[in-house]
Amino acid sequence: MDPISPGVPPGSDTSHLAILGYDLEKEYFGRGPIEALGEGVVLGENEIAFRANLATVKLANNMAMVVDRRAGRISTQETKNLVDILNEEVPEVDGCSFRSYGLTEHRMALTVSGEGLSYEVTDNDPHEEGAPMLECQQRQEARNADGARRLASVMNRWEIEAMRALSKADLNEQRKHSGRPVANAVLFRGSGVAKKLPGFHEKFGFHAAAIAGGALYKGVAKAVGMDFIEVEGANGMPNTNLEGKFEAAVHALGTHDFVFLHIKATDYFSHNKNALGKSRFISKVDENLCLIPSDLLRTLSVILTGDHTTPCDRGMHSGEPVPLLLASPGIRRDDTKVFSERQAASGALGRINGTDVMKIILDATERTVELGTRPSPKNVTFIPKGLKPLIFEL
Amino acid sequence: MDPISPGVPPGSDTSHLAILGYDLEKEYFGRGPIEALGEGVVLGENEIAFRANLATVKLANNMAMVVDRRAGRISTQETKNLVDILNEEVPEVDGCSFRSYGLTEHRMALTVSGEGLSYEVTDNDPHEEGAPMLECQQRQEARNADGARRLASVMNRWEIEAMRALSKADLNEQRKHSGRPVANAVLFRGSGVAKKLPGFHEKFGFHAAAIAGGALYKGVAKAVGMDFIEVEGANGMPNTNLEGKFEAAVHALGTHDFVFLHIKATDYFSHNKNALGKSRFISKVDENLCLIPSDLLRTLSVILTGDHTTPCDRGMHSGEPVPLLLASPGIRRDDTKVFSERQAASGALGRINGTDVMKIILDATERTVELGTRPSPKNVTFIPKGLKPLIFEL
Repeated sequence: MDPISPGVPPGSDTSHLAILGYDLEKEYFGRGPIEALGEGVVLGENEIAFRANLATVKLANNMAMVVDRRAGRISTQETKNLVDILNEEVPEVDGCSFRSYGLTEHRMALTVSGEGLSYEVTDNDPHEEGAPMLECQQRQEARNADGARRLASVMNRWEIEAMRALSKADLNEQRKHSGRPVANAVLFRGSGVAKKLPGFHEKFGFHAAAIAGGALYKGVAKAVGMDFIEVEGANGMPNTNLEGKFEAAVHALGTHDFVFLHIKATDYFSHNKNALGKSRFISKVDENLCLIPSDLLRTLSVILTGDHTTPCDRGMHSGEPVPLLLASPGIRRDDTKVFSERQAASGALGRINGTDVMKIILDATERTVELGTRPSPKNVTFIPKGLKPLIFEL
Repeated sequence: MDPISPGVPPGSDTSHLAILGYDLEKEYFGRGPIEALGEGVVLGENEIAFRANLATVKLANNMAMVVDRRAGRISTQETKNLVDILNEEVPEVDGCSFRSYGLTEHRMALTVSGEGLSYEVTDNDPHEEGAPMLECQQRQEARNADGARRLASVMNRWEIEAMRALSKADLNEQRKHSGRPVANAVLFRGSGVAKKLPGFHEKFGFHAAAIAGGALYKGVAKAVGMDFIEVEGANGMPNTNLEGKFEAAVHALGTHDFVFLHIKATDYFSHNKNALGKSRFISKVDENLCLIPSDLLRTLSVILTGDHTTPCDRGMHSGEPVPLLLASPGIRRDDTKVFSERQAASGALGRINGTDVMKIILDATERTVELGTRPSPKNVTFIPKGLKPLIFEL
């Protein structure tokens, strides 16, 4: 399966949305709000959100050269202190309201609301150290170019005010004196707008639960209205509580008819180019898969896949196809015996896209109706909303 | 091949149109007119058509509960009698003209014409007994919402008038006295408009003939302007005249350069969940395929496929891929030896869509031109309409 399409490396948010059956062209409005949601930030509809870092920059030739993108991994507590200053000193620029949220360590969420703004702007984060902070600009493909230009302009003005406020902060004076990198700038990225997505239940008729360690996946689950189930020790890291997650997933099947279980650490090892660690972690996942009761597996539909490839030699997402296993009483078998990239490529599913997955599962579980014919009351998913009896007043 | 796309179960009309190269998004206007055409009903362009049943309903709580969707499989003759009453008593509602046609047993076609109507409405047929007759409504996705609302309104008003007329019919009095279910309502479904489709010849340059037993396929053939060849005993049922159909197909190749031969009974067995009967019938088809003269097969291009899957355990169309065989002197071979779902899944064609089939056959028979280049006079199919020689007057 190509989560998006051949050769396109997905971000984890876009690939999850595609595999969950969302149309990115029409229903994706940027990563910022999804990450912020995952971190517990409450967003108003149409509020624009960025992910951001407190960073260390050095002015040279009128540019802000990025020295440390994470300001020496400044502590969560210190970030909260500086965020309070930002909220107090730069709450507004040109009639637009700004709000900063301190997250873990150097991480922040940054939101903006104002008339006539469009989220379609570029990052000021150059995503590497030694490079200058970038001007925030309207994106070339912006549908609302005026609104994007206006947002870019207020973001750049906010940044200058924010840098002034941070440079005066007592905390930064202390950091300077103790030889630690000052947190004197905010690098922001991933602008998006918090639009209400059609819910997963509304779209497919499933009452869905989600289990994940990483904040992004929590954000995706919240954005599509899944019930998020917290599992102690589920942290998206190699030492996550895998067994607890699988147990919670099996348990959730008692209360929900769709369970989304995300496992992150394979990707963590891949980004660190640690092939052996990844292989060992995959074995652990295998062991836990075996914990699913076999009588449950006989009736359950299982979708097992990755949201993207992250080859260990590259250490970044690539646009290669991922193996996809679909098992359901209503799905044909093929002769593939091994779940791997190479074996899956000759499987009977052929090369499909991420957005095909939900359609195939709906069909395998007999939730579809023939194209061109009527919805049947039995197939509740597809009854056009608002069908009702003809009422006679005789 | 996915007749439509992965996981989408086609209706037989939509899948035939897709495999014959039609763009459903732009060129499909509902099943009603295709079925009506197949039954020999003559439709005016832009006339709206429904398939309908005479049915038995019982009023309760101001709703019409469906007791028998087929009014005890009322006879063809009795249906004609009641249809005459409908045409006489409810010929018009709010300036829109209605026309009912009696078909086999309880089956009817129902057509409407009027200013500003759009066919985009829902069925009043709940498709199951014990459920109430539904209000006909505009479809959510209607492009012409006002027109659809207007049609829904006149349909609901027609239905009430039709029920009044039927309940007074002498025939129903007789049925009631003899203990048979009365035909006191009309359940309609599959609204569509009789738009002129671009002809198969105009689209692809083929002079096509069609051979089929079922009315729907006859309707598809007529809708795209194929010559329909009647074969005695071809009835779309297990006892159809298979040999006669194959003979007629071979014969038609003398007068036409494209022959569409439809065989229905495999689907009949599948809907009845009769796997053994289906298997035996497939063997019969195999035997008849062998009747095609081998010297003809050496030059002929053959497309052998199903318009959809109907798994015997499900008894309904599913959205799984169908096996597809393309054989032509201009098409590459692969190593597939068996024509079956599982073997075809690893064939060289990969997983294509129904709309790819005609393009591949046009190309295999050298009827295509390079994208971005000129049409060649030999490839008449693809000369843009209206191109003509420069005329010199010297």
